[in-house]
Amino acid sequence: MPVFKAPVDDTLFILNDVLGIERYSNLAGFADASPDVVEAIVQEAAKFSEEVLFPLNQVGDQQGCKRADDGSVTTPEGFKAAYKQYCESGWLGLAADPEYGGQGLPYTLHTAIGEYMSSANMALMMYPGLTQGAIAAIQVHGDDAQKSKYLPKMIEGTWTGTMNLTEPHCGTDLGMLRTKAVPNGDGSYRISGQKIFISAGEHDMSDNIIHLVLARIEGAPEGTKGISLFIVPKFMVGEDGSVGKRNAVSCGSLEEKMGIHGNSTCVMNYDEATGYLIGGENAGLKAMFVMMNEARLGVGLQGQSIAEVAYQNAADYARERIQGRALTGPKYPDKKADPLIVHPDIRRTLMTIKSFNEAGRAFVIWTALKSDIAHRSEVEADATAASDILGLVTPVVKGVLTDRGFDHAVMAQQVYGGHGYIEEWGMSQYVRDARIAMIYEGANGIQALDLVGRKLGMNNGRAVMAFFKEVGDFCEDNRSDEKMAPYTKAIKKGLNDMQAASMWLMQNGMKDPNNAGAASTDYMHLFGLVVLGYMWGLMAKAAQQKLADGADNAAFYETKLATARFFMERVMPETAMRKARIETGAETLMALDAEAF
Amino acid sequence: MPVFKAPVDDTLFILNDVLGIERYSNLAGFADASPDVVEAIVQEAAKFSEEVLFPLNQVGDQQGCKRADDGSVTTPEGFKAAYKQYCESGWLGLAADPEYGGQGLPYTLHTAIGEYMSSANMALMMYPGLTQGAIAAIQVHGDDAQKSKYLPKMIEGTWTGTMNLTEPHCGTDLGMLRTKAVPNGDGSYRISGQKIFISAGEHDMSDNIIHLVLARIEGAPEGTKGISLFIVPKFMVGEDGSVGKRNAVSCGSLEEKMGIHGNSTCVMNYDEATGYLIGGENAGLKAMFVMMNEARLGVGLQGQSIAEVAYQNAADYARERIQGRALTGPKYPDKKADPLIVHPDIRRTLMTIKSFNEAGRAFVIWTALKSDIAHRSEVEADATAASDILGLVTPVVKGVLTDRGFDHAVMAQQVYGGHGYIEEWGMSQYVRDARIAMIYEGANGIQALDLVGRKLGMNNGRAVMAFFKEVGDFCEDNRSDEKMAPYTKAIKKGLNDMQAASMWLMQNGMKDPNNAGAASTDYMHLFGLVVLGYMWGLMAKAAQQKLADGADNAAFYETKLATARFFMERVMPETAMRKARIETGAETLMALDAEAF
Repeated sequence: MPVFKAPVDDTLFILNDVLGIERYSNLAGFADASPDVVEAIVQEAAKFSEEVLFPLNQVGDQQGCKRADDGSVTTPEGFKAAYKQYCESGWLGLAADPEYGGQGLPYTLHTAIGEYMSSANMALMMYPGLTQGAIAAIQVHGDDAQKSKYLPKMIEGTWTGTMNLTEPHCGTDLGMLRTKAVPNGDGSYRISGQKIFISAGEHDMSDNIIHLVLARIEGAPEGTKGISLFIVPKFMVGEDGSVGKRNAVSCGSLEEKMGIHGNSTCVMNYDEATGYLIGGENAGLKAMFVMMNEARLGVGLQGQSIAEVAYQNAADYARERIQGRALTGPKYPDKKADPLIVHPDIRRTLMTIKSFNEAGRAFVIWTALKSDIAHRSEVEADATAASDILGLVTPVVKGVLTDRGFDHAVMAQQVYGGHGYIEEWGMSQYVRDARIAMIYEGANGIQALDLVGRKLGMNNGRAVMAFFKEVGDFCEDNRSDEKMAPYTKAIKKGLNDMQAASMWLMQNGMKDPNNAGAASTDYMHLFGLVVLGYMWGLMAKAAQQKLADGADNAAFYETKLATARFFMERVMPETAMRKARIETGAETLMALDAEAF
Repeated sequence: MPVFKAPVDDTLFILNDVLGIERYSNLAGFADASPDVVEAIVQEAAKFSEEVLFPLNQVGDQQGCKRADDGSVTTPEGFKAAYKQYCESGWLGLAADPEYGGQGLPYTLHTAIGEYMSSANMALMMYPGLTQGAIAAIQVHGDDAQKSKYLPKMIEGTWTGTMNLTEPHCGTDLGMLRTKAVPNGDGSYRISGQKIFISAGEHDMSDNIIHLVLARIEGAPEGTKGISLFIVPKFMVGEDGSVGKRNAVSCGSLEEKMGIHGNSTCVMNYDEATGYLIGGENAGLKAMFVMMNEARLGVGLQGQSIAEVAYQNAADYARERIQGRALTGPKYPDKKADPLIVHPDIRRTLMTIKSFNEAGRAFVIWTALKSDIAHRSEVEADATAASDILGLVTPVVKGVLTDRGFDHAVMAQQVYGGHGYIEEWGMSQYVRDARIAMIYEGANGIQALDLVGRKLGMNNGRAVMAFFKEVGDFCEDNRSDEKMAPYTKAIKKGLNDMQAASMWLMQNGMKDPNNAGAASTDYMHLFGLVVLGYMWGLMAKAAQQKLADGADNAAFYETKLATARFFMERVMPETAMRKARIETGAETLMALDAEAF
């Protein structure tokens, strides 16, 4: 019953008109991404998402994954075939290294179409999603032999990957992890321990599963300094790349979860499993962070994706369901009632979600472009500047888009009234699926702390200063443009709040680190509002340009401007509240003893 | 694994110290509620909730209700026995009319302990909850014969009740309902039609089920003017009160829902079932509103209840789970890590929920006291004034406490990290259960519209003016009290925002009703913030009095003051944002065509 249509026009508007990716043809892979190639890929991804992935979404939720007594796991009906088609179409390797079979196209493009696929079937897309992270870690930290052994199969998708961090007693605080690695003397290790919450840990969709596992080498220092990363294949891999005997790693049980039932979340038991060190002894966390940063953008995108599909369904329902009359008198007097969409409060709901979704989409793609520049530019200053912003906004993408994505799935569900609560209608699944994105790959409180405690102060605040300058310049450059005033004024106001809050943090976070911790979540959301406001500024500017150029589809651009106005008027006032909260400091939070809670 | 402890001290603080219910001994039933009786009842309810209801909460979620082919429905293991014990202890009739077997104690007390029971097992408590609503409707609108036939059995709980409003094509807009009533000529009617989302529609816990059903008598006017209310018993009831043959009403199916699995949500089919008119021809909506208003307070209480139990678990987890170190250096250097509760962002989460829960509890009990005064006072001016406020705040109790209740269940779940997403830990159930409260008994958008479109302007705004005066006077009366200044200043600021927003609504809502609709949800939450702020003002005042009197448990009152300060500093700044949004009006909401969404 639910519907999904990939927002192709919006994606192309952002890629072509807002960000002008044509201008980046000097970056590796971008020259191949000419406007017609981009459009063809985006269209094809839309078709695949709508026709292959989406019809399996509710099936996946209802059937879930099943574990047999022998520890094998069966994915829901149709998942295996859809995944095969995904791999055969080359989606997994779209932006991967051509040396190992990838197509080397922009990560920006990969991200843009990734939205459609997660909208269509988040649980299914997690299988290749985890593989992407594992590929990134091996690409950066693996030696040549490891790369040629694992990457080609993973990039074609016949082997999948996982990330094994969490243990029952530790998630965020990896310094406490106990999984043990004992050298075999031949360069390999025996890995023993239990990992939990392992997404795609065991399943029936690939010929092999390459686990990346954090463990502690016997005698290594305590804490995070003694953690190493290991490659532990499910099936041993011969020198010729052939798949051999089963390794001593198995799925002990599947977790019963609130959502993403189509993805297998496993307890993984390592019982002297053979593992291979990657990235050097005791350098595991660093290697793992390559996966994490990649994954965090992907999780932010999930928040965005679910909010989009939930919104589309709510908008459809609001257009079709008749109930009550417009406050200004019947709009459809020939019908028994008016459709929900005549009601201002329903429109408030839809406009809120719509305005966040469109800015969120621009934000994710803008960030992905920074990633491409950071990794592919040959101009060092450009690469450094892009890398600064990428690091700075990664926790904002993850934290803000998943917090809002969940809230907006809930708001979309609300449009359905009682029907929203009934599983059959599909809205409950969006809410239940979206919920995990606020938690995994670092709970959002950790994202906020990463932003305030690490990213903000790095290199004497170079990244955030550059961000202030970029947004400030945009406002300044458009100061004389009267048509832009409604947007730039609101952005400037938000930016001022953010700068004041940043100043407060500098002065008070040093004095007492609890002030920084107390401010962190509000600061992350304040940042989110300003960056999303800025995205609306860029989009409004591009839309006005298209209108001035006499573009065909004027209604499309007029709608963008109306949505931008909504965001400025209704959403941006939140920045003042965030700032006010930040400036209250830690005192009221720290006042009570633990027992008083 | 989840825990629950009824907040007895908090309840008694509100009843005795904040509201001073002893002062109301002139109201019927209140004289019987001496402080020792109140304390004994509250303690007994706490025990029953903790020991009988709570252990069945997860069981109910996991097992759900089962419908057999003959249409009968089995509730989860243990529900029937617990319900029997509930009835035998007289909980259902605590505040009911003594003429029909009730104990006639204050509704205020009934509400106070109702919180514990919904915290402990919301799904189970819905069975007697619906019965309460049906009792209220029969009490107010039934004739003497109907009252003596149905009320005694319902008040003792051997018969339960339901509300049958919704049909597949209409929920909010009851004017469209199609269920038909044809006179039999003997005063009874044949009722035919289908009702959906009928909570407790069929189950195995009572000897009979008394359905209250909205239907349209043949030839009645169209729309809401032609709706009548009928009593339709599951089993026919003889003149002597004996239970006879089965009536033609049956459960066609159970809905598969996101939560409240322990409650049976039924599609009910009426196939020429025998029904009896209650409250006069075409006067059904008015009669139904008696149930609705009662039920709306009950649903607001559910929001409060789930937030409370979710909070308690999150606080426990935060005290026990060790992960990471305090930002200011290790607090427990002898342990591997510090407990979560040292982290400011975890405390922000807990303080937010705690400060809302304690104010929400006061708000619900304060409202219930208004209900008692409205219904039991012999001083007409007092009854009218209380009734004004009761009507005004009912949508605020329902809308705000359920919106926040859900948000706070989600925040509590977040404290658990990945474990929060796993069903075993119980946090997912709180989120899934809390979600329905925002929807049923009038979705929260409808509550907001009821507030802004109906309640605010009634009698030329008499009720809201009285509310302004009450809160304004409180601030004024405490102006010279320096210790109260941190509280009264923030309350006054919130009140000013609310008054300005109300003025804006008066001026602009008349001009264009869409301005009222566009403002409604923000106005409801603005109201909520001011009334909860006021509750904190009353609580702070009472706590300071207790401290000045040298009360034993100083820490309890100091904690109240610290929590009040948090609410004033961190929460109250939201009023300015709500006001700013309201004052943007409807323009940006109504700008787009339906197709542009």
